[in-house]
Amino acid sequence: MIIVMEPKASEEDIQRVVKALENKGFRAILNRGDVMCVIAAIGDKRCVDINSFHSYNNVRDVKLVQEPYKLASREGHENDTVIAFSNGVKVGGREKPIIIAGPCSVEKDFDGLLQVATAAKEMGCQFLRGGAFKPRTSPYDFQGLEEKGLQYLAMAREKTGLLVVTEVMDIMELPMVEEYADVVQIGARNMQNFKLLQAVGRTQKPVILKRGPAATVREFLLAAEYIMCGGNEKVILCERGVKGVDNAYTRNTLDIALVPIIKRFSHLPIIVDPSHGTGQRYLIEPMSKAALIAGANGIMMEVHHDPEHASSDGAQSLSIPEFKDMIKRINKLIGRIDYDNKLAARKEK
Amino acid sequence: MIIVMEPKASEEDIQRVVKALENKGFRAILNRGDVMCVIAAIGDKRCVDINSFHSYNNVRDVKLVQEPYKLASREGHENDTVIAFSNGVKVGGREKPIIIAGPCSVEKDFDGLLQVATAAKEMGCQFLRGGAFKPRTSPYDFQGLEEKGLQYLAMAREKTGLLVVTEVMDIMELPMVEEYADVVQIGARNMQNFKLLQAVGRTQKPVILKRGPAATVREFLLAAEYIMCGGNEKVILCERGVKGVDNAYTRNTLDIALVPIIKRFSHLPIIVDPSHGTGQRYLIEPMSKAALIAGANGIMMEVHHDPEHASSDGAQSLSIPEFKDMIKRINKLIGRIDYDNKLAARKEK
Amino acid sequence: MIIVMEPKASEEDIQRVVKALENKGFRAILNRGDVMCVIAAIGDKRCVDINSFHSYNNVRDVKLVQEPYKLASREGHENDTVIAFSNGVKVGGREKPIIIAGPCSVEKDFDGLLQVATAAKEMGCQFLRGGAFKPRTSPYDFQGLEEKGLQYLAMAREKTGLLVVTEVMDIMELPMVEEYADVVQIGARNMQNFKLLQAVGRTQKPVILKRGPAATVREFLLAAEYIMCGGNEKVILCERGVKGVDNAYTRNTLDIALVPIIKRFSHLPIIVDPSHGTGQRYLIEPMSKAALIAGANGIMMEVHHDPEHASSDGAQSLSIPEFKDMIKRINKLIGRIDYDNKLAARKEK
Amino acid sequence: MIIVMEPKASEEDIQRVVKALENKGFRAILNRGDVMCVIAAIGDKRCVDINSFHSYNNVRDVKLVQEPYKLASREGHENDTVIAFSNGVKVGGREKPIIIAGPCSVEKDFDGLLQVATAAKEMGCQFLRGGAFKPRTSPYDFQGLEEKGLQYLAMAREKTGLLVVTEVMDIMELPMVEEYADVVQIGARNMQNFKLLQAVGRTQKPVILKRGPAATVREFLLAAEYIMCGGNEKVILCERGVKGVDNAYTRNTLDIALVPIIKRFSHLPIIVDPSHGTGQRYLIEPMSKAALIAGANGIMMEVHHDPEHASSDGAQSLSIPEFKDMIKRINKLIGRIDYDNKLAARKEK
Repeated sequence: MIIVMEPKASEEDIQRVVKALENKGFRAILNRGDVMCVIAAIGDKRCVDINSFHSYNNVRDVKLVQEPYKLASREGHENDTVIAFSNGVKVGGREKPIIIAGPCSVEKDFDGLLQVATAAKEMGCQFLRGGAFKPRTSPYDFQGLEEKGLQYLAMAREKTGLLVVTEVMDIMELPMVEEYADVVQIGARNMQNFKLLQAVGRTQKPVILKRGPAATVREFLLAAEYIMCGGNEKVILCERGVKGVDNAYTRNTLDIALVPIIKRFSHLPIIVDPSHGTGQRYLIEPMSKAALIAGANGIMMEVHHDPEHASSDGAQSLSIPEFKDMIKRINKLIGRIDYDNKLAARKEK
Repeated sequence: MIIVMEPKASEEDIQRVVKALENKGFRAILNRGDVMCVIAAIGDKRCVDINSFHSYNNVRDVKLVQEPYKLASREGHENDTVIAFSNGVKVGGREKPIIIAGPCSVEKDFDGLLQVATAAKEMGCQFLRGGAFKPRTSPYDFQGLEEKGLQYLAMAREKTGLLVVTEVMDIMELPMVEEYADVVQIGARNMQNFKLLQAVGRTQKPVILKRGPAATVREFLLAAEYIMCGGNEKVILCERGVKGVDNAYTRNTLDIALVPIIKRFSHLPIIVDPSHGTGQRYLIEPMSKAALIAGANGIMMEVHHDPEHASSDGAQSLSIPEFKDMIKRINKLIGRIDYDNKLAARKEK
Repeated sequence: MIIVMEPKASEEDIQRVVKALENKGFRAILNRGDVMCVIAAIGDKRCVDINSFHSYNNVRDVKLVQEPYKLASREGHENDTVIAFSNGVKVGGREKPIIIAGPCSVEKDFDGLLQVATAAKEMGCQFLRGGAFKPRTSPYDFQGLEEKGLQYLAMAREKTGLLVVTEVMDIMELPMVEEYADVVQIGARNMQNFKLLQAVGRTQKPVILKRGPAATVREFLLAAEYIMCGGNEKVILCERGVKGVDNAYTRNTLDIALVPIIKRFSHLPIIVDPSHGTGQRYLIEPMSKAALIAGANGIMMEVHHDPEHASSDGAQSLSIPEFKDMIKRINKLIGRIDYDNKLAARKEK
Repeated sequence: MIIVMEPKASEEDIQRVVKALENKGFRAILNRGDVMCVIAAIGDKRCVDINSFHSYNNVRDVKLVQEPYKLASREGHENDTVIAFSNGVKVGGREKPIIIAGPCSVEKDFDGLLQVATAAKEMGCQFLRGGAFKPRTSPYDFQGLEEKGLQYLAMAREKTGLLVVTEVMDIMELPMVEEYADVVQIGARNMQNFKLLQAVGRTQKPVILKRGPAATVREFLLAAEYIMCGGNEKVILCERGVKGVDNAYTRNTLDIALVPIIKRFSHLPIIVDPSHGTGQRYLIEPMSKAALIAGANGIMMEVHHDPEHASSDGAQSLSIPEFKDMIKRINKLIGRIDYDNKLAARKEK
């Protein structure tokens, strides 16, 4: 941490900061410049709330040197986290990128869900997604089938062998969701619902954590840290678009650069959701490819057996034929990436 | 709702949309232009998820004509909502603007809290704020005193007569928070925690709903709608800054225009929090004044008996002397505004 | 400047940076922490491009300690800049806040312009604004009357005594605009048109510099610095709204906090344009008041004699009766502010 | 265009709008709903400034049905624009994606420039970039070599056969830049410098138009329209990052989705600049690949013979060995894309 004093700061002001730093276990080094004094605080104390120093007299600025997240950081954890499922599927590192597909929400028509799941299985996908509890911007929109939805997902798993991903919206529903799901999802709007993060952190269930629509990289990794702090290190990060400068052509701006950024600063797997990230069906294919070639550990997309009658997000859902057609090309790319990764891994040895 | 078809849409495409609209209870009127066909859907059906029409073949765009919120809307509810408390304090409409003051979080030192509360009372403030459960970006930061914090707030209320505002972060804590608080606060990061909104909507406790850091006006009013749908109409909106283009000089961009916007489109009271909205102590006074003169029903600010040792948000907290000095000038402005409002009210009669 | 080295940086990496700093005239002080080394570069060298240090091996981050602008900075220039015009009008510091009013663009109908100017004069405004060259997003929109527009403005000045503000869009038009205008305006889209800034800097004409729609405070003050570098210190900054999270209810987010920020970090006058800043007529009055009470040195607004037939920006233009009605209330507020400022000035003596 | 009237609009209000529409050549169709009246304006009149209707009494909203750009639009211009150079290089459509490489600015050391150009040629690049006039945020940063820089670029072209891309910042420099450059670049900060766009539109020189840092898709295509209106249809669009929610890890958010969006709504070529788009050297390779696989017609990147001593943008410049190493992998991807494109083209025949 670096504390920049105002030019007019008195010796007394400086010494108060030095003392406060020392009380918190730092070693303080003064750099007296021609114009102002800069105090470097040495010591690995991530838990200090840096803002508290702003309130000292004549402190101009407090600058972070180390990132405030620790368990989620690549530093001190060089190897990629790989999450393994009982059926052999693995997510993370140089494992083959995965595909998660399914409707936005699970609806009354179980047969429709099964059609989607069967198509997903047929195309080599590993996960079925579907919301039983739906976070909707308007209280008048469809809110989900709740437990019945979870049961449908489990039934579809039984018939296809796909693993089930579904969102949990509240602590009280967590035990129920945990019972049915293979992976629990935290939605973008709950990325900073800290109580929910902590609750999920106390389980051992793999978690997909979606980035909040205006979350910085640091805020995102600190949200992951909340889960990991509780003892659950099986966190899969998911980019799903951030609020951008244009919202006439897309719903969000899909931040593909987040993929290599996370790869550099964290060991956690990261996947990309181009359906929510763009809100436009025609953008799913190019953005899936872009995510994968940039290093994503997987992609997640919305598929519906009858998009025109979907209860939510019809505009961005692929129909089953569109989905199959597209996945053929995506699989070709995944094959190439997997081949290159394996080659690279072999060379390193 | 208006549905714009692509130039290449066939008669069949158009008729499918018309039929779907009619099935949902709309009357459809076709406007065939030289280039494309525009379908106007007549009928007051706010509950239809407009996105579903995007998934029809050759639909170019779906445009909303009416806002999707209803209970929160000024339309059909011309009179301002005024929330009255047992001690005679009123919030909203042309009532005298209120001041909410207190530390960011309630800390172990009860005496410090009491000093702040006493000063607030002395300066004519109506509410004491303080967090017992703290939403912190980092899991390593101070997380709040929990029930002990609520008890401290209640004790300070007893001694000063101030009403208590405190945040609820999770449904499970709601009964406990309700017991101690006069007003329950939903934090910005929980603005779209829909389960929590619904839970608060089932109580009769007044609620301060803070705007999410990237929430549009529509999203904000739909979040209020979630609470009101449950039967609780005592919602006080609170602007607390949105993510802006600059974050070196301020933490957020305080969107003062939201005040007159809300006044026009909703009947709910709106207050402004310049402490979180700017993150800078020196900006609290000018931004409080700006909020009030733009029509805010109140302001909310952070005051700490010892900002240098605050557990959170020290940088933006006022000390007690700074606070008193500033409130003198704010009170003068509130006096003028109150006078002008009463004059205007008399003239209208 | 502070340079943070990566934990893995070698002694050689560190010494290369130290040497490079010394070559550029800095004194380098090393702070070797437990995890990483932090180099403080002492010396007031604003002209060094800090990014160049990013390219050194194992440099993690380069942090600025001093702001890169100098002439525009309050440091070393404590007194407010006040710009005085030949007719006695003054802008800046604690001078009475000014009002600039007029149509978005000067149109063919000179009589309409004169009606607006006469009303502005009658209400005590000091400046007439109007565009002769119009920056329009679409090439199909009205582009301005050019020299004829400038002549109209000059004629209106002659008849009313108002000073004339008009925009210059290109260096080649500058001599012509300078001839007619009392204040030359640089539009938001040209805030980083550095050649134009330099050209205006070589004149002695007062300049209104509008903030770019996504410009940070630093970028804005550096744009002012470009003008001042050339020798022209008569720069009036103007906030006119930045791109925000909502664009359905307003065109831009008017950043009122910029006013007290500029007052703290710069000595230059700052005014606010609520017409462009919100794009909504009903928001002009509350936002004008908010700007003034937050300390703005003036406001600028669009008035048209016939808004329904305005060639540009009709939606946000006030009609003459609306304008007069509103200015009465604004003038009352300006009167109070002026009184308070004079009182404060007297006390300081 | 669709005009939504307020519920309280009188018949007279409605008829005034109808009349105004008819005066401007539209056919007006009224849709009287239960709550409000919606007027559909039929007619292909892109040149009407839609905002003018906002100023009519009791108009709630004006919604655009057709995009306001015409020449840049895919509608009525189905075939991709392909720009051909005298040496046989082609840009756009399904032509092989191009690579533009070179230093941020041309510096005094011609030999350094030549080293970069030689490496670029050797690796199969088609264009050499380099700034002779540099738009710098601070007036104290290096401003470019001006004509000498242009001469150096021309000399490097002579020796390598690469085509030259360089930025023009002002109309007055245009004749000089045109003389030396094969492609003239308009920088992001000048995207709405309409006079410059018009001037470039009057030449026949191919233009790279960079997206403004906060420009919407519509604003970007309208800027292209300005150039095309003048008669120059050789416009290459370039995405270079927009202001995003995070600016600690990257300089900008690179909006890869813009590539397929432009492909759908326009016939113009689009390339991507990951160097400015991210500001981080380690992100250039993954983001180049993402851009190319999403359909970009080319990429543009900064390479410097000695990044540690670059006059500008050292942090994001690749060294020559880094560049060569990376281009090998990029070329492999370009080869695959080119193969797939040719296959697809053959199938269509």
